[in-house]
Amino acid sequence: MAMEPILVKFIEKPDLTDPVLVEGLPGVGNVGKIAAEYLVEKLNATKFAEIYSKHFPPQVLLRGDGLIYLVRNELYYYRNSGGRDLILLIGDYQGLTADGQYDLSYEVLRIAKELGAREILTLGGYATGRLEGVPRVFGAATHSHLIPKYTQYGVIFSETEPGGGIVGAAGLLLGLGMNFFDMAGVCLMGETTGYFSDPRSAREVLKVAVRALEVPVDLTDIEESARRIEEIAMRIAAEEEEEEGRRDLGYIG
Amino acid sequence: MAMEPILVKFIEKPDLTDPVLVEGLPGVGNVGKIAAEYLVEKLNATKFAEIYSKHFPPQVLLRGDGLIYLVRNELYYYRNSGGRDLILLIGDYQGLTADGQYDLSYEVLRIAKELGAREILTLGGYATGRLEGVPRVFGAATHSHLIPKYTQYGVIFSETEPGGGIVGAAGLLLGLGMNFFDMAGVCLMGETTGYFSDPRSAREVLKVAVRALEVPVDLTDIEESARRIEEIAMRIAAEEEEEEGRRDLGYIG
Amino acid sequence: MAMEPILVKFIEKPDLTDPVLVEGLPGVGNVGKIAAEYLVEKLNATKFAEIYSKHFPPQVLLRGDGLIYLVRNELYYYRNSGGRDLILLIGDYQGLTADGQYDLSYEVLRIAKELGAREILTLGGYATGRLEGVPRVFGAATHSHLIPKYTQYGVIFSETEPGGGIVGAAGLLLGLGMNFFDMAGVCLMGETTGYFSDPRSAREVLKVAVRALEVPVDLTDIEESARRIEEIAMRIAAEEEEEEGRRDLGYIG
Amino acid sequence: MAMEPILVKFIEKPDLTDPVLVEGLPGVGNVGKIAAEYLVEKLNATKFAEIYSKHFPPQVLLRGDGLIYLVRNELYYYRNSGGRDLILLIGDYQGLTADGQYDLSYEVLRIAKELGAREILTLGGYATGRLEGVPRVFGAATHSHLIPKYTQYGVIFSETEPGGGIVGAAGLLLGLGMNFFDMAGVCLMGETTGYFSDPRSAREVLKVAVRALEVPVDLTDIEESARRIEEIAMRIAAEEEEEEGRRDLGYIG
Repeated sequence: MAMEPILVKFIEKPDLTDPVLVEGLPGVGNVGKIAAEYLVEKLNATKFAEIYSKHFPPQVLLRGDGLIYLVRNELYYYRNSGGRDLILLIGDYQGLTADGQYDLSYEVLRIAKELGAREILTLGGYATGRLEGVPRVFGAATHSHLIPKYTQYGVIFSETEPGGGIVGAAGLLLGLGMNFFDMAGVCLMGETTGYFSDPRSAREVLKVAVRALEVPVDLTDIEESARRIEEIAMRIAAEEEEEEGRRDLGYIG
Repeated sequence: MAMEPILVKFIEKPDLTDPVLVEGLPGVGNVGKIAAEYLVEKLNATKFAEIYSKHFPPQVLLRGDGLIYLVRNELYYYRNSGGRDLILLIGDYQGLTADGQYDLSYEVLRIAKELGAREILTLGGYATGRLEGVPRVFGAATHSHLIPKYTQYGVIFSETEPGGGIVGAAGLLLGLGMNFFDMAGVCLMGETTGYFSDPRSAREVLKVAVRALEVPVDLTDIEESARRIEEIAMRIAAEEEEEEGRRDLGYIG
Repeated sequence: MAMEPILVKFIEKPDLTDPVLVEGLPGVGNVGKIAAEYLVEKLNATKFAEIYSKHFPPQVLLRGDGLIYLVRNELYYYRNSGGRDLILLIGDYQGLTADGQYDLSYEVLRIAKELGAREILTLGGYATGRLEGVPRVFGAATHSHLIPKYTQYGVIFSETEPGGGIVGAAGLLLGLGMNFFDMAGVCLMGETTGYFSDPRSAREVLKVAVRALEVPVDLTDIEESARRIEEIAMRIAAEEEEEEGRRDLGYIG
Repeated sequence: MAMEPILVKFIEKPDLTDPVLVEGLPGVGNVGKIAAEYLVEKLNATKFAEIYSKHFPPQVLLRGDGLIYLVRNELYYYRNSGGRDLILLIGDYQGLTADGQYDLSYEVLRIAKELGAREILTLGGYATGRLEGVPRVFGAATHSHLIPKYTQYGVIFSETEPGGGIVGAAGLLLGLGMNFFDMAGVCLMGETTGYFSDPRSAREVLKVAVRALEVPVDLTDIEESARRIEEIAMRIAAEEEEEEGRRDLGYIG
């Protein structure tokens, strides 16, 4: 008998009130992953399920104390006195294949539905190659009634961007959710170069998410991470400019 | 429980009379896609089913109003007072794998069979790299009795072309249809370079399809698109010739 | 409901006496394919089943009269008054994936078993890059009692060759047959360069197969095909030698 | 009916006492494979099952006497008067895909569990590119109580190495074992360059394994293989040094 494609280990089945499913898995610039893990940590959310799957790489990871764990996704919940409860999805990997991506998103939606979720917020990055300025946050929604809430936080719902659509769990959870689970939702995408893990972009996404989800999250630490990246980026940019200047003056062959 | 490989959402199950299944999905030069979408639009055909599948990319696409939809194929019907009814298959993608291609074609045939279809017309492109002249339309059939009707419209049933056979839904619907659904059919392939989306080739395919299907479709708009492409192509060809001329005269090293 | 991975269309279920399953599908130098198709043709064997599968490419092929057929494998039988009956497996493709290869070989063995087969002869090529001389025929068996019969026809059962084992249906039918169907068998591999379809190698394999299977097959036509290839090969070799000679003499820079 | 993904042929179902599952399949430097096959040979362990699967390559291998066998994994047992009984897993290949890797490890764990196993020792290599010195042995465990036993044999449980985790059966057996079979275990990884089969690294892994498993295994033969590799390695290193010296002196352009 073959192993089931997805094996979910429940730690508990929490009793939640109209929760919002929030996703942040590895992806472009790891923007969604950084943002969602920041929420889990700062909200001290409670893990209630681990998702193992043959759709993930056949691999264990080190925990740093000589111990290993099998690659997985994890579900947390947060009881929100200031707003709606949260179900948070984070993890080491997304599904390796199209089949795996669909299967995993479908399974997460089944669990979220069972826990009463009707709304989804997915977090991701949008590779523009652009480094200067404050990263903009783009949005895409399943239903138009969700858009005004986010535009008031500065989110851009563009006619054309992102041109290639949204690939992976951040898109699939919305697409499968609206078609097969009667859910509505929004994807927030922070601009990022796409070349490195980007806390600057995650910070901008978090600013919107924290307001939209009405959660008490202190953004000081992500601001700090973002600032460090900004300094590095500015230094590199300055060096490149200097370099170009010298080249223009003929100092370099 | 894993997601089913294919999920069909029916909007309605139309009552049709001896309908012909017409396919035009993305492929070589997008000839089939352009042609079939033109038919859907000009006939103002009615969508009756959406096909979602893990055989498609794990992706949502933007609709241009900040809203997303999950990649899919779509089935339309058209009640044809002048001839036989139509079932039209269009979509964003074909299946990503061999397995997916077979599964999706098989499922479409099951639906078409249920609706009474016994005949198929698939539309596609045939990459010849040839740009000059009016694109020819090649044909291939499941049964020889279907050939004369199409040769009278100028379709070429060649001994040797296309040499590699017909890959994807345009071929599979016919191959699976004749073997497992007792259907007969023809594939029309418009010559195209294979390097870009080609409304010129689609126009030639449409000329044949409109006559064969006896549908009231005005070809003015596709003529217009084709003309624009022709102008671009002629300009490029002229520039290339000029370029070569200069090269021959030694103007260019 | 997904399409079954393999769909077998039976034309008839022949009543055979202790038949031998003979396989020759596309592979190295197409040696097996050429040899097995030669047997089917010269024995005027009767097709009794067509095997369609999503493990094959999603493709139809042209028959040369404007008609198409879906890529497939085929099973023929031959009632042999001079020896044991034959079941012959030929086709357009082997399975595209490991999964597909196993599935298809397993299914063929199930059918052959049902028809009473206890022995297998698979035909293939062995790429040695070697062009000169008469191609040797290597053998590999499931059981040692089968070896003497073939060594008497000049087949070489080597300690080391082919080093990489036997890949594809020619190997799997034997490997699965011996383990799960209680069958015994031999694989004949004709030496070939591996760069082109090789009737010379097929001729050598056929010489052995015809004697082993005790079938009345005239080898004149394959001799003729082999001779044509030999002439081409010798001409190329001669030209290369001449070329090298000239190079040695400094005629060519 | 498709072939089952995994087919296990049992020769016997041994009655074992609290056995340890020991794995050594092909991988980095073939360290685990060399080590585990050495144990099987020196302990004269008894084969009790063969594992065939469509997750392996579609291939038969030669046994060296003109006979073939289908690629497989094998399970052996060893009744250990000096310590706990062993179940040993060796084989020709690991699963080709993520899906296959998970399936095969899961199946092996099912069998081991049925035979009473509660502990696992997996053997593998760790590519550091480092050739000089005695290869170190790194460890990773499912539970912290297992670590002290191995540190006393010199095994290093690092905070950071191997950085990429453990890929394949050596990792999965532990990861799936701890989560779904209530097992505990350790992976031993011998340092190796990753460029060739490395008996030196296997020797170091064996030194630890033999003590940890309390089995009477004479290491003379692996010492001999390791010494031969060491001599080759030292000769290459010396030549390279000489080469560099000459280069520094300008002898070589």
